[in-house]
Amino acid sequence: MRAAFYISDGTAITSEVFGHALLSLFPTDFEHFTIPFVECVEKANEVKKQINRESKRSGEPALVFHTFVNHEIREIIDSCDGIIYNFLEHFVSPLEKQLGIKAKPKAHRTHSIHENSYDYRIDAVNYALANDDGSNVSNYEHADVILVGVSRSGKTPSSLYLALQYGIKAANYPFTDDDMDELKLPVFLKKHKKKLFGLTIDAQRLMDIRDGRMSNSKYASARQCRMEVREVEKLYKKEKIPFLNTTKFSVEEITAKILSETGLQRYKY
Amino acid sequence: MRAAFYISDGTAITSEVFGHALLSLFPTDFEHFTIPFVECVEKANEVKKQINRESKRSGEPALVFHTFVNHEIREIIDSCDGIIYNFLEHFVSPLEKQLGIKAKPKAHRTHSIHENSYDYRIDAVNYALANDDGSNVSNYEHADVILVGVSRSGKTPSSLYLALQYGIKAANYPFTDDDMDELKLPVFLKKHKKKLFGLTIDAQRLMDIRDGRMSNSKYASARQCRMEVREVEKLYKKEKIPFLNTTKFSVEEITAKILSETGLQRYKY
Repeated sequence: MRAAFYISDGTAITSEVFGHALLSLFPTDFEHFTIPFVECVEKANEVKKQINRESKRSGEPALVFHTFVNHEIREIIDSCDGIIYNFLEHFVSPLEKQLGIKAKPKAHRTHSIHENSYDYRIDAVNYALANDDGSNVSNYEHADVILVGVSRSGKTPSSLYLALQYGIKAANYPFTDDDMDELKLPVFLKKHKKKLFGLTIDAQRLMDIRDGRMSNSKYASARQCRMEVREVEKLYKKEKIPFLNTTKFSVEEITAKILSETGLQRYKY
Repeated sequence: MRAAFYISDGTAITSEVFGHALLSLFPTDFEHFTIPFVECVEKANEVKKQINRESKRSGEPALVFHTFVNHEIREIIDSCDGIIYNFLEHFVSPLEKQLGIKAKPKAHRTHSIHENSYDYRIDAVNYALANDDGSNVSNYEHADVILVGVSRSGKTPSSLYLALQYGIKAANYPFTDDDMDELKLPVFLKKHKKKLFGLTIDAQRLMDIRDGRMSNSKYASARQCRMEVREVEKLYKKEKIPFLNTTKFSVEEITAKILSETGLQRYKY
């Protein structure tokens, strides 16, 4: 299998996103190597040897995605037997012309602690954990958003992703079997109705997920899953709570849709 | 302030990473607009109008970073008054030549639920939550890695990021004041010594963080923070546990370093 390398003097997250976006367009498999923190000449020479070794092994030059700004290290990597793809190279000079200023290359630009957003994000993670699964319903005035939905509709991973990625304080509250008899909004949610965002999920997918956790339980039964989904969707419509069916979506997609529908500002930049 | 747009028919995460990596090289500020899920002609026309409006408002053409694969939508966006940067355009045909196959553009390639890794990630989030902060020490045989360290050294956000981003099952265990008298590895950690990864932090930074949570407490005192940090670092060295000082690092950097030092495989691709 042909090798693909994602290399950087920082986390290599940018190189990975860049390379993955491109390679995912091609219907073929690659062996992936991510190598972060290539910060010195010795390490660069080591990586160059590894690229050459993998190119030889597979019989095809490795694809190398990198974003180096240090010239010395970059020259070493660029002299390997692989094929180099460096998107900074293509875009920096057109941007310099457009902006009328010179780029100031520095390492650790994109995923470092120096972002203003950093403390926000850690605070938001602490908030999401303290307010997960309805554990702290008196604390909702500090929430940016409150995700509601039945158990296993995606509330917790979405809350954590909103916190870690965007610094958004997301609480979440589960509607459980006990709530289902004439499902109404509890007072503590009604008070913050503008912050509510509903998640729902296809009953069949919900059954599969619940069955993986509690096989043959009432909780995972077809009747129970269908009833819970029907009840929460009725509530969302009645109360005009914006909602999303998460069945076919990843955490990235769910949170991007929540941001886009609620107009919440991300603190990332 | 000049406007920068990150637009996509999917989550727009790739466009954001791409644009942010480039703009962070320039010592100037931008007003950022992220617009995900531009999936139809109507929405594309709306976005085009918004770009034109912002270009007019700031007196300079907006910078537009996108990754559209649909030609109809792409043409609409490309006809706006902004300056277009599309990295797919620059790299797809060189890659086609190199690989000897044609790209198969499809939407929702990079951050969708169809990745094989998706269930891994949700399972890993559940694992991280169930095994946070020493809450389940009998469950460590299922861990990929066990982060150890004093309270507020970055264990929880790092565990959650490893889970959400990479599908890695990370437990974490705190060394507390009660452990500090002749700090030793508890039996349940000793059993899984190869999975341990230590976090440490500068005592001053630890004081600041703890003071924000419990002002004027013993927990946040200089003496206590210095003692705890000294003791855990002594333990890491004695037991040859790999460790990292998190003081100057973001969650992205901490987790990239953990992956790179432990050789753990990410399940992302």
